[in-house]
Amino acid sequence: MRVAFQGEPGAFSEQAICEYFGQVQTLPCETFEAVFAAVAARQAEAGLIPIENSLAGSIHQNYDLLLKYNLFIVGEYFLRVRLCLIAFPGVKIEQIQKVISHPQALGQSAGYLQRLGVKTEPVYDTAGSVKLLRERGERTLAAIASRRAAEIHAMQVLAEGIEDDDQNYTRFLAIRPEAASPRGKAKTSIVFTLNNRPGALFEALSVFALRTIDLTKIESRPIPGRPWEYLFYVDLAGSTRDEPVQRALEHLKEYALMLRVFGSYRRAALK
Amino acid sequence: MRVAFQGEPGAFSEQAICEYFGQVQTLPCETFEAVFAAVAARQAEAGLIPIENSLAGSIHQNYDLLLKYNLFIVGEYFLRVRLCLIAFPGVKIEQIQKVISHPQALGQSAGYLQRLGVKTEPVYDTAGSVKLLRERGERTLAAIASRRAAEIHAMQVLAEGIEDDDQNYTRFLAIRPEAASPRGKAKTSIVFTLNNRPGALFEALSVFALRTIDLTKIESRPIPGRPWEYLFYVDLAGSTRDEPVQRALEHLKEYALMLRVFGSYRRAALK
Repeated sequence: MRVAFQGEPGAFSEQAICEYFGQVQTLPCETFEAVFAAVAARQAEAGLIPIENSLAGSIHQNYDLLLKYNLFIVGEYFLRVRLCLIAFPGVKIEQIQKVISHPQALGQSAGYLQRLGVKTEPVYDTAGSVKLLRERGERTLAAIASRRAAEIHAMQVLAEGIEDDDQNYTRFLAIRPEAASPRGKAKTSIVFTLNNRPGALFEALSVFALRTIDLTKIESRPIPGRPWEYLFYVDLAGSTRDEPVQRALEHLKEYALMLRVFGSYRRAALK
Repeated sequence: MRVAFQGEPGAFSEQAICEYFGQVQTLPCETFEAVFAAVAARQAEAGLIPIENSLAGSIHQNYDLLLKYNLFIVGEYFLRVRLCLIAFPGVKIEQIQKVISHPQALGQSAGYLQRLGVKTEPVYDTAGSVKLLRERGERTLAAIASRRAAEIHAMQVLAEGIEDDDQNYTRFLAIRPEAASPRGKAKTSIVFTLNNRPGALFEALSVFALRTIDLTKIESRPIPGRPWEYLFYVDLAGSTRDEPVQRALEHLKEYALMLRVFGSYRRAALK
């Protein structure tokens, strides 16, 4: 089995594939759209895309691509983003003088790096910083990236979980050309648009409240170029196999200008 | 007047300050938190922070900082993110062989760069890529950044608006130690938490629907470490000077575990 992701080998998305799918082949893609295209063209059986990060928020671009491509969400996974300090094998942490990584990773471990008393240099990518470390061949240099990136480039993890905020996680969605059909603890993701008038959202949400269906996510988004229209992304508890969910979605069609069901899938735990 | 922002001189945030505040001094800060700290310590009269991007989504970290610091939202501004191709003065576009910028900027103008037939090299920052261009001194090299970055480094804008998707904008919030008190076309930003049970959000939104108060943004966010609690960010039409808004917020306190009003401010147009 082959799973597509956006980024270089060793990216956090690849780490998420390892944890979610186990032993599979991975297909690195340059852009998120290339991931969708690879799955649609069946160059990969599935794709794994980040959809929201606890610090950075939802990745709207991937919602746009879900709308553009005719693929289904078939699973979700929460990755705890654990930043690793990575150096050449045999190097001791006291030897490190400078640390390179993406500015975001450097920022997220600023407290740790200050205590370590090292200089920092921003580079364009976390996984890329480990590649750069290997190319430069300096034993006083370290990179910050995923454990997976250290493994791929045969480097050593000096410290793991060096981020200052330990509540950093990313939610990933598994996408495939065919819908899943889970029973039991499931989630369903939908998107819809409403006329912009006071109370329109309240009306739309009544279809779930009246059937005691729990919402696990709601997000509005203005549609650029159409300043008075909104997209709403909603995740709800339950599967499209459940009759109350089916009835709620039928009822929602009475209010929504557009409604698309991205799929039902097994709920994952936010550890 | 001095306004703090996150990033290097020439960052898109600084561009937004120029467009929103006009001629003011700017204070570059390394992190978003440093912006809040500078405003709280009155090293700057105001700060301007990005809160959501049309492609990337909301920046949750800045919502966290709004909760952490006792500052108020006093204004909003929508910046159309226009990427510029920047080179040394006198250079012609045909001479360019390689383009450097942050991977996101390179990705957002991939179509344009392909038609131009140039090589690309990722660097850590958009504004930083213009600094790097100047340091390298190569006349076959170009950078992608804001118009402001070109001006600061005395470089030439070869082309403007080279992004493939012209619906790329970022919403900024102006923050100050004292609340504004607008009349007329205003917006109010709040955050609240609810018990996670079906219908809780529906109940909470009734306080606005029953008073015909329009919502312009709603977003839920799981609270890491507390898997069954959610934060809700809501922007509503109206000012806390308006009686219906005051009554709705009083009513909301009956349902919300926590409620914080970030402030009322004049509505900006999404161009």
